[in-house]
Amino acid sequence: MEKKSFNFLHSDSENRIYIDSKNNDLRVPFKLIDVTATQTENGESENPNFLKYDTTGPMGDEKYQHDFKKGLPKLRASWLDKNTDLNNEKNILKSKSDQSITQMHYARKGIITKEMEYVAIRENALLEQAKQLGVMIPNGMGNMPDSITPEYVRDEIASGRAIIPANVNHPELEPMIIGRKFLVKVNSNIGNSAVTSSIEEEVEKLLWSTKWGADTIMDLSTGKNIHETRENIIRNSPIPVGTVPIYQALEKVNGKAENLNWDIFKETLIEQAEQGVDYFTIHAGVLLRYVPMTANRLTGIVSRGGSIMAGWCLAHHKENFLYTHFDDICEIMKAYDVSFSLGDGLRPGSIADANDEAQFSELETLGELTQRAWEYDVQVMIEGPGHVPIQQIEENVIKEKTLCHDAPFYTLGPLTTDIAPGYDHITSAIGAAQIGSYGTAMLCYVTPKEHLGLPNKEDVKQGLMAYKIAAHAADLGKGHKGAFARDYALSKARFEFRWEDQFNLGLDPQTARDYHDETLPKQSSKLAHFCSMCGPKFCSMKISQDIRKNYGSIDSIDITNIENSMKQKSEEFKKQGSEIYKAV
Amino acid sequence: MEKKSFNFLHSDSENRIYIDSKNNDLRVPFKLIDVTATQTENGESENPNFLKYDTTGPMGDEKYQHDFKKGLPKLRASWLDKNTDLNNEKNILKSKSDQSITQMHYARKGIITKEMEYVAIRENALLEQAKQLGVMIPNGMGNMPDSITPEYVRDEIASGRAIIPANVNHPELEPMIIGRKFLVKVNSNIGNSAVTSSIEEEVEKLLWSTKWGADTIMDLSTGKNIHETRENIIRNSPIPVGTVPIYQALEKVNGKAENLNWDIFKETLIEQAEQGVDYFTIHAGVLLRYVPMTANRLTGIVSRGGSIMAGWCLAHHKENFLYTHFDDICEIMKAYDVSFSLGDGLRPGSIADANDEAQFSELETLGELTQRAWEYDVQVMIEGPGHVPIQQIEENVIKEKTLCHDAPFYTLGPLTTDIAPGYDHITSAIGAAQIGSYGTAMLCYVTPKEHLGLPNKEDVKQGLMAYKIAAHAADLGKGHKGAFARDYALSKARFEFRWEDQFNLGLDPQTARDYHDETLPKQSSKLAHFCSMCGPKFCSMKISQDIRKNYGSIDSIDITNIENSMKQKSEEFKKQGSEIYKAV
Repeated sequence: MEKKSFNFLHSDSENRIYIDSKNNDLRVPFKLIDVTATQTENGESENPNFLKYDTTGPMGDEKYQHDFKKGLPKLRASWLDKNTDLNNEKNILKSKSDQSITQMHYARKGIITKEMEYVAIRENALLEQAKQLGVMIPNGMGNMPDSITPEYVRDEIASGRAIIPANVNHPELEPMIIGRKFLVKVNSNIGNSAVTSSIEEEVEKLLWSTKWGADTIMDLSTGKNIHETRENIIRNSPIPVGTVPIYQALEKVNGKAENLNWDIFKETLIEQAEQGVDYFTIHAGVLLRYVPMTANRLTGIVSRGGSIMAGWCLAHHKENFLYTHFDDICEIMKAYDVSFSLGDGLRPGSIADANDEAQFSELETLGELTQRAWEYDVQVMIEGPGHVPIQQIEENVIKEKTLCHDAPFYTLGPLTTDIAPGYDHITSAIGAAQIGSYGTAMLCYVTPKEHLGLPNKEDVKQGLMAYKIAAHAADLGKGHKGAFARDYALSKARFEFRWEDQFNLGLDPQTARDYHDETLPKQSSKLAHFCSMCGPKFCSMKISQDIRKNYGSIDSIDITNIENSMKQKSEEFKKQGSEIYKAV
Repeated sequence: MEKKSFNFLHSDSENRIYIDSKNNDLRVPFKLIDVTATQTENGESENPNFLKYDTTGPMGDEKYQHDFKKGLPKLRASWLDKNTDLNNEKNILKSKSDQSITQMHYARKGIITKEMEYVAIRENALLEQAKQLGVMIPNGMGNMPDSITPEYVRDEIASGRAIIPANVNHPELEPMIIGRKFLVKVNSNIGNSAVTSSIEEEVEKLLWSTKWGADTIMDLSTGKNIHETRENIIRNSPIPVGTVPIYQALEKVNGKAENLNWDIFKETLIEQAEQGVDYFTIHAGVLLRYVPMTANRLTGIVSRGGSIMAGWCLAHHKENFLYTHFDDICEIMKAYDVSFSLGDGLRPGSIADANDEAQFSELETLGELTQRAWEYDVQVMIEGPGHVPIQQIEENVIKEKTLCHDAPFYTLGPLTTDIAPGYDHITSAIGAAQIGSYGTAMLCYVTPKEHLGLPNKEDVKQGLMAYKIAAHAADLGKGHKGAFARDYALSKARFEFRWEDQFNLGLDPQTARDYHDETLPKQSSKLAHFCSMCGPKFCSMKISQDIRKNYGSIDSIDITNIENSMKQKSEEFKKQGSEIYKAV
């Protein structure tokens, strides 16, 4: 793959800036969107540039030259070098045998790590921006924090309400946090299958994902070269990487689930932990006694990992070895600070199967496992569905919160209907926005290809756009002031006909610009007070502006005495030419 | 325009059937989707073909030859001819001066019209199908009727909880109903602007809209040839046509809102009522005293009609003439049975302006006007926002229901965030699904071009796909059994790897097929038990099927005695070859 193929990451309209820590020993990158001034009759009125959370990593800096084969610079290496609780053997980091090195461990001891400080700066900047913009939010919306301090982050980690997935062997990582008191995050699934794709394509999907705002990525490869693909992804990933280790373990036994066993799985876990995977999906909640509960389902078991483990349980007539070896798994993950993503192997795969006994029985077991993982100071999030009709979504969040002791929830959609293959990014963005607004911390995207084929680069983008919308809508729903600031800035630009600002403040400036230019391609149209939708005479925003210009003080009119004031205004208006639609 | 350009309406995979009334004097068209049999080891097991609500009108019948210039056949002509309450002068129908001819009038008198019978058959068929399929819905979901009779339709119309927009001068119409106890409907906005489009393009968008499931259409033309464009649309439309008459009135005064007056508006109303427009958006709730409430808004007034009327009020320093002449308007609409769509001229145009004083003050006035219209037996629905964050959506429905006496709600989205120009079909489908699940009866689509330009044919399709999803997700959320049936049929096909059935039961068969074929184009792949997403070894549905095949009776296992049963099954499984992943 040629380096220049990554040029798409450098967007013309966005500049990179950094916010440093107090001690200047870490710096957090943001994008700064240029915003132009408002034109008024009295001259220009400045608008502040807009700070944007950014997941592109070093690639987002135009000055940075990336070499795909060397991988990204190792941002965390200097922090990790100083950690005396770690051993370094042949360049693989691991906790000393008598030590614990997880973020949860340090948080519980009252220690603020560099990772915690980093995410505090990252999350707080947007709240600070909202404060400086004077953003107001509607009464009674949510109870989100007004600012995020490193102490706040530490306490959320200590309680288990949030996680920072950050394997000590992933020094390229820019730390991020997943928890209901923070920005709702989005995961992008990539990875090849036996049928299609290559390592190069998958690395390109990773970088493409970060361009479109993915907060984490899961490498779900099940085809050839699983180890090498993952190595290339981790070394080039500024965002946490998750995997489902059972996929690789199954490849090692040539696809025969019956031949899986603890030793092979353990070896796979260690192999991946040493590479730097930040979180593992582990389907330890698929218990033998739950499998019969799926027999009358319309669509049985639809999680790949879930069906593999169910097959194993039935073939051996034994309890799931991921469950019986759970303490061993915790020991391994603890040594590298790999976080759990406790898999929902029995999630519903159709509207008909939503919220059933199998699903909620497994969730109860995931709650039990959460507490066991926390005994090892291993961080945990909980995976959720799937396919759920709108009216049954909230129940999922309530149950998860209660049964799983406030551990962060991480859901796949949910899809709110089964009837739209080809559009499941939309069927599921509807459910994702809603479940996010109830407190789900991370949303796993669904692409238009869901149920139909492996997503390509364009599908990845469409999935991410739908999910960035869902996550942001959820943030607004929760009353996140930092989120409101962006809607405010964009709508102000829209109302003031600052077209380029409107495009640049949006999720996908180029697409917005292209759509606009389809009917009004001239540069002069970027200054016009209308678009082709309504034309010059019918643009309500223009009329509304004209009204405001002519009746600038209407808000201060005494309504009881409106007669006289309005009469006077009316005369003035007529003198000015009696036209609210002036030629443009 | 060549007739053959309409061939896209004839889809290969869907056949037309009709359900007749008891007296055989009316017949209601449906699409019947061919569904293949399930392949089992014991041979084939039949699946019933699937009945689908259809809005394509005569065009959906392959045998029908359409002549765009002649317009559609006049389905309702024979019913209307028999109505002795009507006068026919120069082929324009109008009630006799001492008579009332609205659907609400007849309903209140206990009379069941042909229109009511038609919609009862149309809506009930899907419920009957669900009953025959044995569709179960989750406990505690909604309180939707189990069947829809003509009497039920009549009572909903009489109470004002539902409307059948059906101008007596639109005989080409296939009647449909809008109300919270019925399927959630979707409106498609078309119409030219001064900047772009032609009559031919707009008629093509109408037919294209019905292909993709639009239940009503609004002709929002503001450019050239408004009258002629509308004439062509109505004569070719099997679905109700709505307009905003103030747009044409404004054209008549050369765009100077100040020069608008009651006489010009009245003349326009009559002109459009005589043509056959089925519902009028009337912004009679934009009162003079409400206009100052918008002065401090971030985005002022964003409804075109709302800003025109606000401009008029301010220029004249007088109360809105649509409000002061409301009784006159009712008299005109009553004579042709045009329904009100009471416009929300003060709807919020940004997240920052949602649910504010201006919006809810106008809604209160719309409630007052609803009761006044009902005194004339004129049918009413109420328009709603706009831009609303998730947590503030339900309040809109509660307020509308209370203030407007259960009149059907008809909302534009709402968009749940402002930050995604180019993707507003998605930002708004999220809000639309949610507001629909709370009881909104019709959803006005938003296309990807919203805020950027006039939608073209492809945008119309994308908008409709997003909104058919939203409406269906809302139907599921309300517990509509007829809706659940389709998810059931599609998911059953999916689980059984009946690929063609899965495509055909979906909203857009061709797109689903194309996506699938991108990676697995061979016909043999349509029989394969996997797709390129997971490949043959990792398809959970396949594994799950295999499990079920081998453990067909696991649901009947006594859990307390699971040990022995499972051991036996395990032995059988091993004898069968110990593979859950058989080569395909």
